[in-house]
Amino acid sequence: MNMAPEVPAILVLGPPLVFKAYESAFSQKFNFLKPWEKPIPLHQFISTHSSTVKAIFCSAVSPVTSDIIQSLPELRFVLASSTGVNHIDIRECKRRGIVVANAGSTFSEDVADMAVGLLIDVLRRISVGNRFVKSGVWRRDGDYPLAHKLSGKQVGIVGLGSIGLDIATRLKAMGCIISYTSRTMKPHVTFPFYPTIHRLVANCKILIISCALTEETRHMIDREVMLVLGKEGIIVNIARGAIINEKELIECLVKGEIGGAGLDVFENEPNFPQELFPLDNVVLTPHHGAVTEEACRDLYDHVCKNLHAFLANESLECEVDM
Amino acid sequence: MNMAPEVPAILVLGPPLVFKAYESAFSQKFNFLKPWEKPIPLHQFISTHSSTVKAIFCSAVSPVTSDIIQSLPELRFVLASSTGVNHIDIRECKRRGIVVANAGSTFSEDVADMAVGLLIDVLRRISVGNRFVKSGVWRRDGDYPLAHKLSGKQVGIVGLGSIGLDIATRLKAMGCIISYTSRTMKPHVTFPFYPTIHRLVANCKILIISCALTEETRHMIDREVMLVLGKEGIIVNIARGAIINEKELIECLVKGEIGGAGLDVFENEPNFPQELFPLDNVVLTPHHGAVTEEACRDLYDHVCKNLHAFLANESLECEVDM
Repeated sequence: MNMAPEVPAILVLGPPLVFKAYESAFSQKFNFLKPWEKPIPLHQFISTHSSTVKAIFCSAVSPVTSDIIQSLPELRFVLASSTGVNHIDIRECKRRGIVVANAGSTFSEDVADMAVGLLIDVLRRISVGNRFVKSGVWRRDGDYPLAHKLSGKQVGIVGLGSIGLDIATRLKAMGCIISYTSRTMKPHVTFPFYPTIHRLVANCKILIISCALTEETRHMIDREVMLVLGKEGIIVNIARGAIINEKELIECLVKGEIGGAGLDVFENEPNFPQELFPLDNVVLTPHHGAVTEEACRDLYDHVCKNLHAFLANESLECEVDM
Repeated sequence: MNMAPEVPAILVLGPPLVFKAYESAFSQKFNFLKPWEKPIPLHQFISTHSSTVKAIFCSAVSPVTSDIIQSLPELRFVLASSTGVNHIDIRECKRRGIVVANAGSTFSEDVADMAVGLLIDVLRRISVGNRFVKSGVWRRDGDYPLAHKLSGKQVGIVGLGSIGLDIATRLKAMGCIISYTSRTMKPHVTFPFYPTIHRLVANCKILIISCALTEETRHMIDREVMLVLGKEGIIVNIARGAIINEKELIECLVKGEIGGAGLDVFENEPNFPQELFPLDNVVLTPHHGAVTEEACRDLYDHVCKNLHAFLANESLECEVDM
C-alpha cells in the first residue's frame, strides 16, 4: 500500500514555457512531478505515480488523453497554461467530475497584438522589407511592389472572446470596419454580428481567427470560405491551426486565390507547411502569440493562485465550462 | 525670344512613385517635363526649359536646391509628393515668393500603421520569427527568447502632427500610456506634454519619431537621449533618418545600450547602416511608410487637385507654412 504524501502531487506535462521560466519559484510552492527528468516512457512514469497525482499542469501541446486521465484515479484538476483546451479530453474530465481551468484572459492583449502585428506585416510587407533591406539591396520604389492599406478595410473576426474583443478594439482604432461571427451574438457589443462564417466572409476582406478549436470549428475555414474571401483577402490565425483546412489554405495561397496570410499556429505543430516558405505574402511565427516575458510573469501568478485555490478547496479562476 | 507654351510646364523631379504609377493619367491632364527620359545632365535639362517651368513636382528624395530654384525664373510652385519638405530649400522659396505644398495628411494613417507594425515587430519578434520558421527550424519555446509585451508600455511620441496623432490613437487602443513632445503643446490633446525631448525620454520606454526634419530636430535623438531610454528602450523612426544621430544609434544598438529599433528611414538613403543587419532586435524597411496602393491613388487625386488649383490661380490644399 502506498503512503499518501503530505503534499498532493501535481503532474507537469509539456512542460509549459512558464514552468521552465519559473521552475525554482514553482518548486518551492508545490510538489511537482516532472516526467521529462526520468529516462522512462511517459505512461510508465504516470503509472508509477498513479495513486498520488491530484492535478495536472499542462502546456498547449501536451495531450491530456482519456488514457492518461483513466490511469490517474485521484485526478481532480487539470490546469492548462494556454487559453485553448482542445488538447484535453474534456468529455472524460466531465464524466469523472474533474475540473478544468485555463489561462483565462492572461494572454488576450498579447495575442491580440500578435494578430495586429501579423496583419500589418502581411499588408505592409514588413518582414519582406526587412529581408530586402538586410540582404543589402536598396532598389527603392520601382522594383518594390506597392503594399496595401489597413485603414478602411472590412475585418471579420471569428470568435469574439476576450482575444477577439481586444483585436476588434485595436483594429477599430486603426480605422478598420469590424464585424464578427460567434456561437452566439454578444450582448453589449455593437459590431455587426453574422450568424455564420459564410455570411461573415461575404462581408469582409480580412478574416481573423480567434475562436476555440472544437468539433464545430475544425476546418471551418475551408476552400469555399477562402474563395469568397478572394484574391485580395487576407487570413490571420492566432487561435489553433486546425480551425483552417491547412491543405486547402496552402493550395489557395500557392495559386494566388487568396491574397496572403499571417499564421502563428499550424495544424500539425511543430510541422510547418513548407510550401509556404517562399511566399512573401505569407508571414509565419512559431506559435508565439502569448510568449512575452510579461505574460509569462502574469501566468506564473495565475497558476500559483489556481493551484493554491485547488489545494485549499477554494473556488478557481477561469474554470472552463464543460 | 522663347514662345510661351499654351500649357504651363511642370518639371517632375525624382520621379515620385505616384508619378510612375499614374503617368499616363497624369500626362493627359498636365504638361510634364521628364528629365530622366533625356540623356543629358539634369542642370542642362533644366536650363533648356528654364523659361517655361512654372511648377515642380518632386519626390521626397529629390533635392530642390537654391541652384535649381535660381535657374527657373518663372517658378511659382513646388509640390512635394511627401509629407516632409526638408529636401526643398524653403528659405529660397520664401525669398522668391514661391508657394510650397506637400502631401498633407494623405499618408498619415499608413505611416502610423507602419510605426505600429514596426514596433510590434521589434517587441514581438515577428520578422525574426518568420525567418526562424521559414528556415525550416522549429525549436519551440526553450531555445527561442521570450518577446516583450506592448500593452502597458509608456510610449513617447516626438512630434504630434497628423501622423503622430494617428500613432497615439492606435497605441492608446493597444493599452499603451502615451505622452509627447512637440514645438508647442497641442490644444484639445489630453496626452501629457513634455516641452523637451529630455523630459519626454525620462518618462517613456518607447520613443516614436514622427516630427519634421528641421535644423532644430536634426540629430535631436543622440546618444544622451538613447542612454536615458535605456537597455529595454525601443526607438521607432518613420519620419526622417537624420532626426536620429545614426552613428550613435548604431553604437548604442551594437553595444546593447538600447533594446531595439524599427527604422523605415535612414540618414543617408539609399545607404543603410550595414552594422545593423545581423541584429534580430532591429527591423529595417526601405522608407515605405507611405507606399500603399490606396495612398498612392489618394495622392494622385491630391496632386491633380493642387496642380489644377495652381494653374487656375485658386487656393491650394496643404500649403506649407514658411
